Amino acid sequence: MNRRRRIYEGKAKILYEGPEPGTLIQHFKDDATAFNNQKHALIEGKGVLNNRISEYMFTNLEAIGIPTHFIRRLNMREQLVRSVEIVPVEVVVRNVAAGSICKRLGLEEGTPLPRSIIEFYYKADELNDPMVTEEHITAFGWATPQEIDDMISMTQRVNDFLSGLFLGVGIRLVDFKLEFGRQYDNDMVRLIVADEISPDGCRLWDIQSQEKLDKDRFRRDLGDLIEAYQEVARRLGILVENEQGKHQGPILVRSS
Amino acid sequence: MNRRRRIYEGKAKILYEGPEPGTLIQHFKDDATAFNNQKHALIEGKGVLNNRISEYMFTNLEAIGIPTHFIRRLNMREQLVRSVEIVPVEVVVRNVAAGSICKRLGLEEGTPLPRSIIEFYYKADELNDPMVTEEHITAFGWATPQEIDDMISMTQRVNDFLSGLFLGVGIRLVDFKLEFGRQYDNDMVRLIVADEISPDGCRLWDIQSQEKLDKDRFRRDLGDLIEAYQEVARRLGILVENEQGKHQGPILVRSS
Ligand SMILES: Nc1ncnc2c1ncn2[C@@H]1O[C@H](COP(=O)(O)OP(=O)(O)OP(=O)(O)O)[C@@H](O)[C@H]1O
Ligand SMILES: Nc1ncnc2c1ncn2[C@@H]1O[C@H](COP(=O)(O)OP(=O)(O)OP(=O)(O)O)[C@@H](O)[C@H]1O
Ligand SMILES: [Mg+2]
Ligand SMILES: [Mg+2]
Repeated sequence: MNRRRRIYEGKAKILYEGPEPGTLIQHFKDDATAFNNQKHALIEGKGVLNNRISEYMFTNLEAIGIPTHFIRRLNMREQLVRSVEIVPVEVVVRNVAAGSICKRLGLEEGTPLPRSIIEFYYKADELNDPMVTEEHITAFGWATPQEIDDMISMTQRVNDFLSGLFLGVGIRLVDFKLEFGRQYDNDMVRLIVADEISPDGCRLWDIQSQEKLDKDRFRRDLGDLIEAYQEVARRLGILVENEQGKHQGPILVRSS
Repeated sequence: MNRRRRIYEGKAKILYEGPEPGTLIQHFKDDATAFNNQKHALIEGKGVLNNRISEYMFTNLEAIGIPTHFIRRLNMREQLVRSVEIVPVEVVVRNVAAGSICKRLGLEEGTPLPRSIIEFYYKADELNDPMVTEEHITAFGWATPQEIDDMISMTQRVNDFLSGLFLGVGIRLVDFKLEFGRQYDNDMVRLIVADEISPDGCRLWDIQSQEKLDKDRFRRDLGDLIEAYQEVARRLGILVENEQGKHQGPILVRSS
């Protein structure tokens, strides 16, 4: 394990060189961070859960015809993915007002939006990931107009699918973030969904109780982060075993 | 009730004149028919269930920004809808091979399709609703090329959303049928989803057991049609009361 070449260590994940050219191993850590790393904690078991939940999401996106970087899960914390050139823009969809849009536009949390709104944020920690427009993205060459169109239409499809999926398990998909990457294949290039889809990058509210089942529990010190992520996995029917490899019912998680 | 003007009586529903111009009342009957009415039965409670399930589907489609004819449910068997000019083309999406595509293309039921496939059928009982192509549709003026594009993109969105919704409750959305209608508003016209979305017009397979939870139970004499529709409603969390207006837990249905 330790002899693998580490390509990148981020706040929540580590990327290692993969077994074949064009592949990477994505390792999910237990680190939780917020407000651009000003707040940090280790949450035992979070990496295991996000690895599973993200596997579930990407597998189902592939099944409905949305291309992703996901190849297969390798173990409790790691998955094999296609290596891509990440588009330095995070794509956010909002179905209900929450988080930064409330501050920016003076909206109360929970206000339904007139329609789902897509936003772009430039991936630059040192600038606090500023919101940008298509003007900035094309002017600085972060993505072409065609790539922006592709990201928008894939994001809309992902939003439709995930909104339905979460509704089916009694959860409102308030907003979420996607990352896209360029996959080079001979002289072809296409955009695919990369990174992860997990409660770290979504806002998920229980429809009955309005309870938050996402990283806002950490941002706002609401506690029980792991229990919330387990609840999301449990409702989706995702079986999470402990690091001894034993299934302990559908929700139990223990991690080293 | 009896003095309302009846506009149309179909195999499964009756349309009455609505209370305001531009509206209709859609009444769900208990009749089940198949093979273009060659097989017919009364299934007590089916109309009540389809009214509820269709209300749930259309309400959620509106919520994600897909325009529909649905205004509100009026009572156990009736809903108020916008009157439209029905496009005489049924739009079918298939995610898994079942029904007529198996026969037409020699596929085994359950074969996954290379991707989701959209088909068009000309609404003409006397011709057994034949499959048609965009060529036929535009040549005979049933819909314009722009309207076909709009139907395709709305259908794809509905498919993404419903596939997610059903997956969330352990059901595979194998295929389903949509009808669209033209809504005239001053000198504007737009296409909206009309008719119904219910297990009468979908194929729904339990993901674990592969059990059919749709009208194929009737087509193939598998029995327990109502129990299957109730199960679909129950999983979606749709509360169905009896015709005395009493909720009897989430699944009980009794109808006169
Ligand atoms: N398939 C992939 N190929 C290459 N890079 C990827 C792929 N999927 C995700 N990444 C990148 O790997 C990193 C994952 O690490 P992590 O999410 O911990 O980063 P981070 O701390 O959020 O920082 P940042 O996302 O700003 O780089 C991210 O930079 C992400 O953009
Ligand atoms: N909003 C609407 N405005 C006008 N007509 C509608 C609307 N929604 C559905 N319809 C039409 O109302 C009828 C509903 O009746 P039903 O589904 O029982 O018909 P059917 O026996 O299936 O026959 P067919 O659909 O071939 O006309 C259908 O003809 C359908 O196209
Ligand atoms: Mg990241
Ligand atoms: Mg009909």
